[in-house]
Amino acid sequence: MDLKGKKIILGSGSPRRRELLAGMNVEFTIDTGNSFEESCDPSTPHEQVPALMSEGKSLGFHRPLEDDEILITSDTMVLCHGDPEHSPILGKPHSREDAVRMLRLLSGREHEVITAVTLRSGDRIETRSDSTIVVFKELTDSEIDYYVDNCKPYDKAGAYGIQEWIGLVGITAIRGSYFNVVGFPTHLVYEMLQAFL
Amino acid sequence: MDLKGKKIILGSGSPRRRELLAGMNVEFTIDTGNSFEESCDPSTPHEQVPALMSEGKSLGFHRPLEDDEILITSDTMVLCHGDPEHSPILGKPHSREDAVRMLRLLSGREHEVITAVTLRSGDRIETRSDSTIVVFKELTDSEIDYYVDNCKPYDKAGAYGIQEWIGLVGITAIRGSYFNVVGFPTHLVYEMLQAFL
Repeated sequence: MDLKGKKIILGSGSPRRRELLAGMNVEFTIDTGNSFEESCDPSTPHEQVPALMSEGKSLGFHRPLEDDEILITSDTMVLCHGDPEHSPILGKPHSREDAVRMLRLLSGREHEVITAVTLRSGDRIETRSDSTIVVFKELTDSEIDYYVDNCKPYDKAGAYGIQEWIGLVGITAIRGSYFNVVGFPTHLVYEMLQAFL
Repeated sequence: MDLKGKKIILGSGSPRRRELLAGMNVEFTIDTGNSFEESCDPSTPHEQVPALMSEGKSLGFHRPLEDDEILITSDTMVLCHGDPEHSPILGKPHSREDAVRMLRLLSGREHEVITAVTLRSGDRIETRSDSTIVVFKELTDSEIDYYVDNCKPYDKAGAYGIQEWIGLVGITAIRGSYFNVVGFPTHLVYEMLQAFL
């Protein structure tokens, strides 16, 4: 992709986002220096949380941007209803039990994955979100145990990676962008980047 | 995956199918020895073609199966309506012009990807198909040229790989299984394999 002399900075430590941006043939550097504290008003509608987080990460970047720089930040949220005792927002699991609880909740249900992306240059900021519905088959306890013990999904919101074993055997269908579920809505990043160049 | 002493043979040379079956943690060997000629009665309904091809590949395997062996074969078809001068079945492109023609047809449209899988042991054969709808944004001529010249999609039905540059920037949504579009409906293979073991 012709970046017309602009320098792209990816403000995310996620190896999956790095791979996807590289797959788009975009040259970039990584800089995760950030002072943003990930929290927001509990009254915020769930659908707007990733956009607020992504924008917060962008504005919390540790230094001002140069005129020829574009910063890309992103935030992914997993939203699953069905457990009245917990928030429908599934973050990264705190423990083995928490991962098992999340996967039991996702089992045999549809849930929503929302990823927001923010592009920022010296004089401009834009944030957009994409949503994908993901359908899991009924997972057995032994499938959940096998996955958690072997893949240790503690760095993943919702306790799963669609590109891992549980995604291959347990996800029967999605509606929306696959890469959005991986954590980076590439088609949206491409469209936004073209408008920024 | 516990194969209960069975030996799995993948009867496909596709590197993508190999990766996906390995990602399911299934141990297998590859044997593409086959005498099947890929052709079928032109009056066959399009949706049934991949199942016939996959079953043909299974039955055309170059030797009888041992009692402890399970052979997996597969066939993927891309179906896109909108060009009255050509069949809606998009095979592997014969030339650069053919690849460009296919991508122009897919641009700004929905199309269907059907993959069939056949499992066969000494005394049993089963074939199932899965269908996914794929949505491309409008592709510019320069995007099509860039993709064809850089990724050379001559080994891919429909002239694209969803996991390649064009899939990242050009596909806005799918409905169904992502891995089915890559060429192997892993959730179906898992279900069928469990019933065969």
